[in-house]
Amino acid sequence: MKNTILVVGSVALDSVSTIHGSTKRALGGSAVHFSISASRFSPVKVVGVVGEDFPVPFKRFLKRRNICLDGLEVMPGRTFHWKGRYDRDFKNARTIATELNVFRHFNPKLNGDHARCGVLFLANIDPDLQRGVLSQMAGPRLVACDTMNYWISLKRASLVKLLRDVDLLFVNEEEARQLTREYNLMTAARKILKMGPSGIVVKRGDSGAMLFYGRQVLSIPAHPIEKVVDPTGAGDTFAGGFMGYLASAGDWRDFDALRRAMSYGTVMSSFSVEDFSVKRVGSLSSSEIRARYDKYVDALSIK
Amino acid sequence: MKNTILVVGSVALDSVSTIHGSTKRALGGSAVHFSISASRFSPVKVVGVVGEDFPVPFKRFLKRRNICLDGLEVMPGRTFHWKGRYDRDFKNARTIATELNVFRHFNPKLNGDHARCGVLFLANIDPDLQRGVLSQMAGPRLVACDTMNYWISLKRASLVKLLRDVDLLFVNEEEARQLTREYNLMTAARKILKMGPSGIVVKRGDSGAMLFYGRQVLSIPAHPIEKVVDPTGAGDTFAGGFMGYLASAGDWRDFDALRRAMSYGTVMSSFSVEDFSVKRVGSLSSSEIRARYDKYVDALSIK
Repeated sequence: MKNTILVVGSVALDSVSTIHGSTKRALGGSAVHFSISASRFSPVKVVGVVGEDFPVPFKRFLKRRNICLDGLEVMPGRTFHWKGRYDRDFKNARTIATELNVFRHFNPKLNGDHARCGVLFLANIDPDLQRGVLSQMAGPRLVACDTMNYWISLKRASLVKLLRDVDLLFVNEEEARQLTREYNLMTAARKILKMGPSGIVVKRGDSGAMLFYGRQVLSIPAHPIEKVVDPTGAGDTFAGGFMGYLASAGDWRDFDALRRAMSYGTVMSSFSVEDFSVKRVGSLSSSEIRARYDKYVDALSIK
Repeated sequence: MKNTILVVGSVALDSVSTIHGSTKRALGGSAVHFSISASRFSPVKVVGVVGEDFPVPFKRFLKRRNICLDGLEVMPGRTFHWKGRYDRDFKNARTIATELNVFRHFNPKLNGDHARCGVLFLANIDPDLQRGVLSQMAGPRLVACDTMNYWISLKRASLVKLLRDVDLLFVNEEEARQLTREYNLMTAARKILKMGPSGIVVKRGDSGAMLFYGRQVLSIPAHPIEKVVDPTGAGDTFAGGFMGYLASAGDWRDFDALRRAMSYGTVMSSFSVEDFSVKRVGSLSSSEIRARYDKYVDALSIK
């Protein structure tokens, strides 16, 4: 179980429209995007909740991908549904509707198999729930979490408490600033490192990503994309590639392993934006991943 | 003269204020930032104009740095003066005053030494003047130019004409979009490549830089900076490092040389923002440049 990842987060139906088209009630949610990406590298178990309307084909789709759904609770009612629209620049999603439905009552309970997973990823949910999950674990070797502006402003104290026990934090630039009230990203990152985590991954969209680990700083570019179709889930797909690789890598504290994890995160998220929902990442061949990874890494190797 | 760079652009006095302080009538201008950066790699000759008020110590400062000022005309009147302020995010400069002064009458005339330079950099000036300079050259082996939103909207036809005879174009993302009326950067770049240049360098500030060369695309990150003091001239300093290295590299069409040029541009511009005016780049030791270049390139080399 050392390399098995437990992810706790949302399983959702997404209705998204962009300049390139739209989807209705497509497979989505942070735990889903994370899992599909991570499962290319390591076994994944999901803890989440769906309503009775959650399509059986979606469950089958996930199970076929080395993703254990024993922890996917089905509650009376409807599945979490998010409806949003992106502008031409794909920077900001405009939320049209957020129907929490059964997700409002999400109270994750782990079984023994979940508790013994070596790696834990706490996707973006209420920090009280994130702490509740962590307290049920039997000493994982690597704990990472994500969060968002909403929790930083509403449940700051709980989030700060959680960070003491987390190894890696995933944020975007705005969240790093909001959490530390510090504009400069380098200074903000150093402040967060003092709050507990050993490492911080800052996701910067088409500006790439940064890793702060101890005194080391790594900035890497995004993989250039010809046509962005739908950025929904790109951050979770990044985290999935990152954590999936890292869980398989043995010593995750090795900076070379962390650099490869950053690159796999970048590559997986570059695929995810090329189509709606999980279409692209859910149908990738291993050789496609390998080829893009090699291309990405080779381009950055300046001789 | 094969490796000597001729740069034609502004020589200015800048009064800049940022959250970290301010300067009054400090050394600035595109040709100046470019030259100081480029001269670390290749000999540079400047063609520009200043007024009678241009301080003698500034001339001495430039001459000491392998920069030939034979083409720096002194006209009756005052030197171009720009006054601006940056907000906390350093993204947009707010112009408080632009006093063109003698620069309004700038009409670059080359002598025989200028005309025989192997490499030409046309900094951001009126495309009519850029074309006038190019027509005076005796067959340079590499021609690059910069431009800005102002010329793209006001002198589009002249700029498009110039691009037919230019090897490399330096722009930022907005300029690439404005020039092509195409939002997607990759598509915009391909459209520009059809207009004449073999390569396009897109400067993206703290998001790094991209190079489009034929069918190849390279995206590289910025070098992470602890404290940005003044971003004025960062783009010209980037171009200086890029062109300076490339002029010294023999075959500039070699993609490995272009990738190293991108890295030297990144490194030089990362120094430039660490202090006001040309203070940091103008006082760098070769070992400082080498050390940061090695650090930058090593970090990106993912094993």
